[in-house]
Amino acid sequence: MKILVLNCGSSSLKYQLFDMPQETVAAKGLVERIGIEGSRIKHTRTGSSTISKDADIPNHKVALKYVVDLLLDGDEGVIASLNELAAAGHRVVHGGEKFASSVLVDDDVIEAIEECVPLAPLHNPANLTGIRAMKELLPDLPQVAVFDTAFHQTMPPKAYMYGLPYRYYTTYKGRRYGFHGTSHYYVANRAAQLMGKPVEGLKIVTCHLGNGSSITAVDGGVSVDTSLGFGTVPGVIMGTRSGDVDPTLVLHIMEQENLSAANMSHILHKESGFLGLSGISSDLRDIEEAMEKGNERATLVVEMLAYGIAKFIGAYAAAMRGLDCIVFTAGIGENSPLVREKVCDYLEFLGVLCDKDKNGAMIRGNEGEISGGASRVKVLVIPTNEELVIARDTYRDSVKYL
Amino acid sequence: MKILVLNCGSSSLKYQLFDMPQETVAAKGLVERIGIEGSRIKHTRTGSSTISKDADIPNHKVALKYVVDLLLDGDEGVIASLNELAAAGHRVVHGGEKFASSVLVDDDVIEAIEECVPLAPLHNPANLTGIRAMKELLPDLPQVAVFDTAFHQTMPPKAYMYGLPYRYYTTYKGRRYGFHGTSHYYVANRAAQLMGKPVEGLKIVTCHLGNGSSITAVDGGVSVDTSLGFGTVPGVIMGTRSGDVDPTLVLHIMEQENLSAANMSHILHKESGFLGLSGISSDLRDIEEAMEKGNERATLVVEMLAYGIAKFIGAYAAAMRGLDCIVFTAGIGENSPLVREKVCDYLEFLGVLCDKDKNGAMIRGNEGEISGGASRVKVLVIPTNEELVIARDTYRDSVKYL
Repeated sequence: MKILVLNCGSSSLKYQLFDMPQETVAAKGLVERIGIEGSRIKHTRTGSSTISKDADIPNHKVALKYVVDLLLDGDEGVIASLNELAAAGHRVVHGGEKFASSVLVDDDVIEAIEECVPLAPLHNPANLTGIRAMKELLPDLPQVAVFDTAFHQTMPPKAYMYGLPYRYYTTYKGRRYGFHGTSHYYVANRAAQLMGKPVEGLKIVTCHLGNGSSITAVDGGVSVDTSLGFGTVPGVIMGTRSGDVDPTLVLHIMEQENLSAANMSHILHKESGFLGLSGISSDLRDIEEAMEKGNERATLVVEMLAYGIAKFIGAYAAAMRGLDCIVFTAGIGENSPLVREKVCDYLEFLGVLCDKDKNGAMIRGNEGEISGGASRVKVLVIPTNEELVIARDTYRDSVKYL
Repeated sequence: MKILVLNCGSSSLKYQLFDMPQETVAAKGLVERIGIEGSRIKHTRTGSSTISKDADIPNHKVALKYVVDLLLDGDEGVIASLNELAAAGHRVVHGGEKFASSVLVDDDVIEAIEECVPLAPLHNPANLTGIRAMKELLPDLPQVAVFDTAFHQTMPPKAYMYGLPYRYYTTYKGRRYGFHGTSHYYVANRAAQLMGKPVEGLKIVTCHLGNGSSITAVDGGVSVDTSLGFGTVPGVIMGTRSGDVDPTLVLHIMEQENLSAANMSHILHKESGFLGLSGISSDLRDIEEAMEKGNERATLVVEMLAYGIAKFIGAYAAAMRGLDCIVFTAGIGENSPLVREKVCDYLEFLGVLCDKDKNGAMIRGNEGEISGGASRVKVLVIPTNEELVIARDTYRDSVKYL
């Protein structure tokens, strides 16, 4: 059974076609610059080389049409007829307090996602565009929405409320939501599997460290706290996002420079983090390279990142009253032995022992343990796979309609 | 030798007269509503009852004159002549990056404190008013400035920098400073004394929990991280201050309600915290009372406070790579067995064991241990004494001029 997984951004569309329940990827690809000059599509049939072509792609519906045509293509395709498509699963960034799990899309669901647009003004409209385009193209295909926020809906109020006047919670839904939930869910469960223990009995801190980063306390399989918040800026320092920052400093800067909230928001999202602090790059690989050459601000970025992650792990150990496992995932988590080693170095008092050889050998795409045999806390590197979770949820939630 | 310790607010002046080096308080008092209708002065000679009188007190110089007259008074006074006054010590809130310790006041120091006014626009001008009034009144008296920020100047850049564009550090001195330094310094050193160990070998988390709160990691006697920041809003939830909050939620609220930075700052400082979240009071005693009656938002405040403190302790244990001692001080820290017990309850995995009987019996003004004998981490309640530190520093820094 074929499941199409879609992740629609404002001008992009990523896709993977899964064979379920085998969980194999038959094809995947990316449409870029939708509605912008220079649109292009990249497509890879598993086992074949990637093809790339320029095309005039004014909107997501046209993009999806290209994707479907490629999937049906005699040479590059993987299906003979659209009837083979059983369902489509969509990544949706924000489900607010409405969605604590994935859901089969109907008009009410679309309306509810629409209502969450003020909470994710850039992402939810793009996600909806993808859902609507698919609906136009294949009206009878079951569609499932899988939310970045859903996994974190188990957080207790002490973790998700801010110390602000209560009316901001009721009026603007001002609370911590957290993101990357699909990734945290996947790696936490995969960690339990690798440890050979039920996730229900484990206290795990999952560190999703990519261009955006978040750290989550997963206690007994459920998220009890996470470092991103109402939006995607707080927590540890990121590529271009600041991480935690004193709000009064933000207000001070706005006053000094006469900045609007929109200006300041842009600075916190796009001009801060590794890039803003180092002046070098938003990519940690560039930062590590500059650090090796002795650049002080690059060194500061790496030190702040590792220190910030270690503090969150300590804080979340307190939140869960213990710690059994730390998982590193996503770009930096999977690919920076330096950051992983520096983080673990803070945590020996918790029983964390990093095996430097194992850690150094663990590069992108590899999965396994980097803690030493004597480590009381298991430290794992697990490549994340949000698309697989979307495929699984889509399979589960749509299969009864097939 | 008599040392006068002064803490000047915008419309208030607190004072204590110390006998040094005996460290005994001869008299103390408070002038309120300076420059406002209804000014009043309260004065207590040690061992005598408090007297209170209304007076016309238009400014700090007049207030100081009243204080000096009371100190010289035949009935309520404690000195026979002004010559007995050896020096005055002032609490100064912000010393920026210029002052890592207390300092004898001269014109350069006054100028440097002036330069820090943008960092503490409410406090530093009031502190300076007190210094200048004293100088006018007794031009030859040595004066020493003791800074709330000085103790935290040992923090490394990874702890004091924010992930913002670097220019905000150079242009606006935008970094974490931390406050309550005199209190953290005092209780950390007192804790080492009570433990009978040199502070240089201890990893201590000091929890100053009052109307304003901050938590500090004191490693080997020096501050390495602290929960207040550029200003006095971040960290744990406080009486009327929010504690940590996602800056993008702050910007979202400003946009929704068309608020200026000054409006929003007022909300974060004065309308948030226990008061804003509970709608009941900024005083934790009222919150605990409401909680006992089953009020849900009061319960949430207490849960958030204890949870937030526990997370900082976990984070700072990671920052220091271990933990030997936790100290509770200031109004809530000294007087709320409930909060202390809830905090300790999270930390058993670190070797923290709270003795419920000892904890319950420790009320305001008492000093001692609340951890059980088997606890690997000592948990202490220590009444803070910032005035004593100011008296000691003033004695030390002025004695060579006497």
